[in-house]
Amino acid sequence: MEFIIDHECFTKAISDVNRAASLKTPFPILSGIKIIANHNCLILIGSNSDIVIEKVIPLTSEGVTILEVYETGSVVISAKYLYEIVKKLPAKVHLRVNEKQFVTIQSDEIVTNLYGFHSEEYPNLPQIDEAHFTKISSIELIEIIKQTTFAVSKSESRPVLTGVNMSFKENRLTCVSTNSQRLALRELALESSINGSFIVPSTSLNELSKLLNNDSGFIHIFVTDSYMVFKTNSISLFSRLIEGNYPNITGLLPTNPKTIITVDTNQLLMGIDRACLFASEWKHNNVHLEINNNGTRLKISSNSSEIGRIEETQQIKTIKGETDLRISLDGNFLIDALKVIKEEEIRLSFGGAMRPVLIEPIDHSSYLHLISPVRS
Amino acid sequence: MEFIIDHECFTKAISDVNRAASLKTPFPILSGIKIIANHNCLILIGSNSDIVIEKVIPLTSEGVTILEVYETGSVVISAKYLYEIVKKLPAKVHLRVNEKQFVTIQSDEIVTNLYGFHSEEYPNLPQIDEAHFTKISSIELIEIIKQTTFAVSKSESRPVLTGVNMSFKENRLTCVSTNSQRLALRELALESSINGSFIVPSTSLNELSKLLNNDSGFIHIFVTDSYMVFKTNSISLFSRLIEGNYPNITGLLPTNPKTIITVDTNQLLMGIDRACLFASEWKHNNVHLEINNNGTRLKISSNSSEIGRIEETQQIKTIKGETDLRISLDGNFLIDALKVIKEEEIRLSFGGAMRPVLIEPIDHSSYLHLISPVRS
Repeated sequence: MEFIIDHECFTKAISDVNRAASLKTPFPILSGIKIIANHNCLILIGSNSDIVIEKVIPLTSEGVTILEVYETGSVVISAKYLYEIVKKLPAKVHLRVNEKQFVTIQSDEIVTNLYGFHSEEYPNLPQIDEAHFTKISSIELIEIIKQTTFAVSKSESRPVLTGVNMSFKENRLTCVSTNSQRLALRELALESSINGSFIVPSTSLNELSKLLNNDSGFIHIFVTDSYMVFKTNSISLFSRLIEGNYPNITGLLPTNPKTIITVDTNQLLMGIDRACLFASEWKHNNVHLEINNNGTRLKISSNSSEIGRIEETQQIKTIKGETDLRISLDGNFLIDALKVIKEEEIRLSFGGAMRPVLIEPIDHSSYLHLISPVRS
Repeated sequence: MEFIIDHECFTKAISDVNRAASLKTPFPILSGIKIIANHNCLILIGSNSDIVIEKVIPLTSEGVTILEVYETGSVVISAKYLYEIVKKLPAKVHLRVNEKQFVTIQSDEIVTNLYGFHSEEYPNLPQIDEAHFTKISSIELIEIIKQTTFAVSKSESRPVLTGVNMSFKENRLTCVSTNSQRLALRELALESSINGSFIVPSTSLNELSKLLNNDSGFIHIFVTDSYMVFKTNSISLFSRLIEGNYPNITGLLPTNPKTIITVDTNQLLMGIDRACLFASEWKHNNVHLEINNNGTRLKISSNSSEIGRIEETQQIKTIKGETDLRISLDGNFLIDALKVIKEEEIRLSFGGAMRPVLIEPIDHSSYLHLISPVRS
């Protein structure tokens, strides 16, 4: 196996697949990157127990030759050392592997030798059924990930809650995440020949989001027995699915709210952020909301018995229903939800001091957040 | 005590003195910032066992009123909470303290209350003898700090070695730091009415460097019984001195080198950085240097028995003396020294494989680095 490759392309590709390569693994081979040199492309693969990332580098990019393959073949090289050395090289990289898996990496007058692994020992990629897929814009997928993954459970006690539930039904994708105290839901219309409900680890989705990095293209989504596969022109991420049944959330969404108010999203976010100053003293980051002045002002406050107290009032733009309300919420949950709402105004629907609060952007009906109150 | 102050100035000042305020201290009052409102200025003080930072805010800045004092007085307020709240306020800050040390901080419709401490309990500033001082440009002082503090000892076993030895003698400042395996020395001519040798903790100097932050003014340096004081127009840093005698280093500087070579500084830095890839496996980050090709090429290499080997050769610009040399050095020590040399070319003087290497910029005789070899 032997090839010469553009330094920048090679560094970026190694950095991408490195995200999946395992630093701590009982299987040394998984700490490596598999490199396959074909006549017409180079393929790099990194994997761990949750995700597999595959990157394809073609011979040319924008009409310029970036890769010349002199001898086809494959090898597995330590991900850590390969990345550390290649990123520090000054120019084109010349990589050769002899029959004993001894790797020589040369650039200008710099020569590095590494012991490689036999690539036959590296696990195979899951097989994709190309007949059923969904196509989604990368930007929309990144937005969905941002708007849902934060709300998953951090505890492994109920594994299904550590993932995002992605349901494809009648050309509609619904993504839900919850940790039992708060819930994020996002819906999207799209053309899909996939049907079914899948639980994808939030960590995989966050990795995917970093990999896509505002790439403006389209993603094809495939599903295999135990993987969901996200595929662009040059990169594929295979995410393990979480087994189990996701809780049915339809009954959780509140009906008949007692009070509905609209407020400025960013102003509320800033106010809650300030109120969290003393909230961190409490187990549930208690921040208190109170409707005042006959329904025209929202008071936000938090206090600590030993240190002090903070309060401010903000304008309520519109109010429907009862004008008398006090409720305590987890300030961090509020901040997380408000941060991912792009719209300038939101609607807060209250069912009473002990009922969950529904937060929705006023001119976007396809996503919502639900937060349970805490005892004050 | 009562004043109204510009939000940006107040935030910056609190952030500056906060560097000294102690997060972990057996004396709760030292976790606070002392604020003194005078008729003509506001003074903020933060301190810990090593440093005291004092910041003075005048009534106006560049002709604009930034401070209005309505009632003089003083108070101590939790540094953590004061900073956290003030940085998040949207506008001018109105601060009042009542006779019970109850502090009210108001900005627009945001009201915060904090319990303050009696300021009488806060330790007094050390007295400065203004008769003896040294004046130095901030940029030069920052450079000296950068070129010496990295080489101090990280171990507390010999406390004097954790500081930089600053000697003022006949209008000459000499700064030396060493951890016994490497040494950095920097000299500077300046006018000084201070004479004597002082050991300043490297941590204080690093804090000072961050505080000055490329400020282009001048620093006045004073010395008290147990403090060195660095003073600009608006800010003073008092650093505790380390007691004890600093080792005499004059005998350490090598004489009669066997080989002297000159090489490109940045190219050598990049080469050593690459060679460190395998050096980290060794206790002393062993990187090997070897003069080859009849004194025209410098080979840089490192290897690991299990993973691999890296080597490269670089051009030697000039050579004097023996053209045969092999030596092993701590790669990280080399990187630290090369990083702080601004000049494009350096001279390396070798006394043999077991003698320290002297590194100097070729056109700057006032600073040098000395590194002891390691056994390969």
